[in-house]
Amino acid sequence: MDQARWRKISDVPLMVVSVVFLAAYSIEVIANLQGHASDGVEVIIAITWLLFVIDYVVNLVLAERRGRWFWRHLLDLAIVALPLLRPLRLLRLVTLLAILQRTAGRTFRGRVVVYVVGSAALLVYVSALAVLDVERPLHGATIVNFPDALWWAFVTITTVGYGDYTPISLEGRMIAVALMLGGIALLGSVTATLASWIVERVQITEDSSQAATRGDLRRLSEQVDELKAMLAARDESPSREVDKG
Amino acid sequence: MDQARWRKISDVPLMVVSVVFLAAYSIEVIANLQGHASDGVEVIIAITWLLFVIDYVVNLVLAERRGRWFWRHLLDLAIVALPLLRPLRLLRLVTLLAILQRTAGRTFRGRVVVYVVGSAALLVYVSALAVLDVERPLHGATIVNFPDALWWAFVTITTVGYGDYTPISLEGRMIAVALMLGGIALLGSVTATLASWIVERVQITEDSSQAATRGDLRRLSEQVDELKAMLAARDESPSREVDKG
Amino acid sequence: MDQARWRKISDVPLMVVSVVFLAAYSIEVIANLQGHASDGVEVIIAITWLLFVIDYVVNLVLAERRGRWFWRHLLDLAIVALPLLRPLRLLRLVTLLAILQRTAGRTFRGRVVVYVVGSAALLVYVSALAVLDVERPLHGATIVNFPDALWWAFVTITTVGYGDYTPISLEGRMIAVALMLGGIALLGSVTATLASWIVERVQITEDSSQAATRGDLRRLSEQVDELKAMLAARDESPSREVDKG
Amino acid sequence: MDQARWRKISDVPLMVVSVVFLAAYSIEVIANLQGHASDGVEVIIAITWLLFVIDYVVNLVLAERRGRWFWRHLLDLAIVALPLLRPLRLLRLVTLLAILQRTAGRTFRGRVVVYVVGSAALLVYVSALAVLDVERPLHGATIVNFPDALWWAFVTITTVGYGDYTPISLEGRMIAVALMLGGIALLGSVTATLASWIVERVQITEDSSQAATRGDLRRLSEQVDELKAMLAARDESPSREVDKG
Repeated sequence: MDQARWRKISDVPLMVVSVVFLAAYSIEVIANLQGHASDGVEVIIAITWLLFVIDYVVNLVLAERRGRWFWRHLLDLAIVALPLLRPLRLLRLVTLLAILQRTAGRTFRGRVVVYVVGSAALLVYVSALAVLDVERPLHGATIVNFPDALWWAFVTITTVGYGDYTPISLEGRMIAVALMLGGIALLGSVTATLASWIVERVQITEDSSQAATRGDLRRLSEQVDELKAMLAARDESPSREVDKG
Repeated sequence: MDQARWRKISDVPLMVVSVVFLAAYSIEVIANLQGHASDGVEVIIAITWLLFVIDYVVNLVLAERRGRWFWRHLLDLAIVALPLLRPLRLLRLVTLLAILQRTAGRTFRGRVVVYVVGSAALLVYVSALAVLDVERPLHGATIVNFPDALWWAFVTITTVGYGDYTPISLEGRMIAVALMLGGIALLGSVTATLASWIVERVQITEDSSQAATRGDLRRLSEQVDELKAMLAARDESPSREVDKG
Repeated sequence: MDQARWRKISDVPLMVVSVVFLAAYSIEVIANLQGHASDGVEVIIAITWLLFVIDYVVNLVLAERRGRWFWRHLLDLAIVALPLLRPLRLLRLVTLLAILQRTAGRTFRGRVVVYVVGSAALLVYVSALAVLDVERPLHGATIVNFPDALWWAFVTITTVGYGDYTPISLEGRMIAVALMLGGIALLGSVTATLASWIVERVQITEDSSQAATRGDLRRLSEQVDELKAMLAARDESPSREVDKG
Repeated sequence: MDQARWRKISDVPLMVVSVVFLAAYSIEVIANLQGHASDGVEVIIAITWLLFVIDYVVNLVLAERRGRWFWRHLLDLAIVALPLLRPLRLLRLVTLLAILQRTAGRTFRGRVVVYVVGSAALLVYVSALAVLDVERPLHGATIVNFPDALWWAFVTITTVGYGDYTPISLEGRMIAVALMLGGIALLGSVTATLASWIVERVQITEDSSQAATRGDLRRLSEQVDELKAMLAARDESPSREVDKG
């Protein structure tokens, strides 16, 4: 069995695992479970983590050139190895968007919109969870409950930045930077999509001032072909005339 | 009577109702009327609300497939059912812009500008009203009078976000998020419109290096047609020659 | 004499007046002159103001349809009538940019850049002056010296909005909103110019896959014309043939 | 020897010098070395500075028209003369990106991305260093350690601007303004690149509705040439017919 095959098999299951992980992670962080209460959730998270590890190992084993694959997928290693990067395991959910689209056939611009909106929403939600997870225990932290964390995430991704809530830990700020860059990407994509739409709409002027299409040219060259046919036809006739003479 | 007909009849009246509602709502919130003073306004708002309900019911009754229409217009139901979404009733005013334009025939870009400016202005004004409405009664709220609310709305939609005024209630923050997203849309539309304009202007170089238009091609194909005509004409003459022979 | 003529005469002088006004206004605000010290400056400002009034009156008198011109130029009236709008008198300096360009012949994009940079710089400087002018006397104001005002203007036009300095008066906030909108326009223009440049650069691919230009078509239609000429020539010859027969 | 030659020789060495300077400068600022500890670093910085001076002098000496070159390169003079502008010496590192690209051949858009990401990262890092360098000694400064400085730089270049950290010195604010303008350029470039990409992707529709290319036209004009050839051929034949008659 090779990697491609494994991916085809593991793709959907791992997405389910991601959703389970997202649910468990959300419950743990939002409910801020302590002691025994959180044990159950911890177990679930541990299992999902184990499954991600297995996926990583299998991929490593199945890789044709293991060394090369290893170096090229250090991030994947980091994601399963470092608890801090746990939230990145949810990146897999972005592939979910791809599937959503395959079902609903769309234009290119439509797909961009789905991706942008979906990724932005996921980024906001996950960042809120992650930042709350790292900030709450800290002394002097302002982001200590989920509604505030969500509010902070929105304020940040839209680059509004009131500053009423700000992360104070290194981890929290790393999440914030990711969110800000996400905001710039969001702003950029929205603008770019609008621009391409407007540019297109503006170009739709009356037909005769539109750029000549290949189709038009084809029609023209057919005319020329007819001409050649007519000439070719006349090339016979004269000889006949002469015979008659 | 079907829905289309009803809409044609109800479109303008409902817009008037929206304007009345906007006026009454503004007075109530800005003047912060209490007790008897606000009764009159409350009555007007109640009447406008009743009219929106009637419109919703009529639309529901006239719908060909009622079930489908119901599920597809849950938002409309929410808008008339939930007091929190009251401000959304003013969305109808956006259609007013459409009418403004029909009177003044414009280019596509011109229409975009009118929509963007109009919607942004409406969004800022209504958000200021709504946020003031929900924040003022709260203990520790910073947005407690209309000028500050309006200032906050501008600071937010432009994504400047000083943070000198920020909503503290969930409703207020939901309004703020709407405003931020509106800001991103605003920024995007402004940029996109400018881009399409500049792209267009830059392309206007000297004529002969411009893209060939369908018009040009048509002229060319006419030339070819004349050619065919000339050949066709000559196809008769030879026979005559022969007769003479 | 008509308006066009008057404008041609008054254009440059009024620009000089604007520069003088800008200088005097800057000195008065930055140096925060009090009592006798400011008298001289006040006189100069009064004179420049008088000249603007004269220009307005002359334009009104010379207008073909005075009523129409009056209603269409209410802003001009407000600018000379309301001290608050004094800074807007400097809008005339934007025309200075137009002249700067006429000297340096540029591409369309180049002109856009000059306008954007010039207007943004002017907007930042004038807003800083104006906001300082209105805020300094107020109790509890944070913008009380020019460097801070300039810093605030930059923080605002770039939509960063730290919130370390914010206007508290209505006039100050109106100036701030103008600056924010200027910021959105700035961001939009920068992006749009970059976009048109990149789009153009990307389109420069190998020649034969480029859009057919009018020039190309013209060459083609000349070919067809030659063809017609050749046919026309042959249309004589046959008759001669017959004669010979 | 002329300037071009000198540049070819000095280009790489000066880049190395820049890297050394960056390293030394980073160590000095981040470690906040005092007294003897910093002497070594100071020496290195002094040497790199000396090399920049030498480069400037050599360039001045080798310039064909010295006076003209001097006035056109006042900034270069300022960069070596004013300690405040020290960080600008690192601008040279941007040329490093150019080299990075020559190695990896890319599309135009790819190059833009490399430049934007590289410059933004360099700008953030250097601004953080520079602002920390000028702010730390000040009483009442908030940016007093490198992590905070870096955080502030990210918050500023993304135009989020929480305001939890802000420069208070004139130098610090000048650096901040540079960073804000960098942020606008960053936002603009990201959006513009995305826009050109989306516009391109959207245009890829089915072939026959695409703009006619020069290649297509060439094929057509060849058809017409064949036609002319055929006519030319027939122009001989008739005479022969007559002879036969």
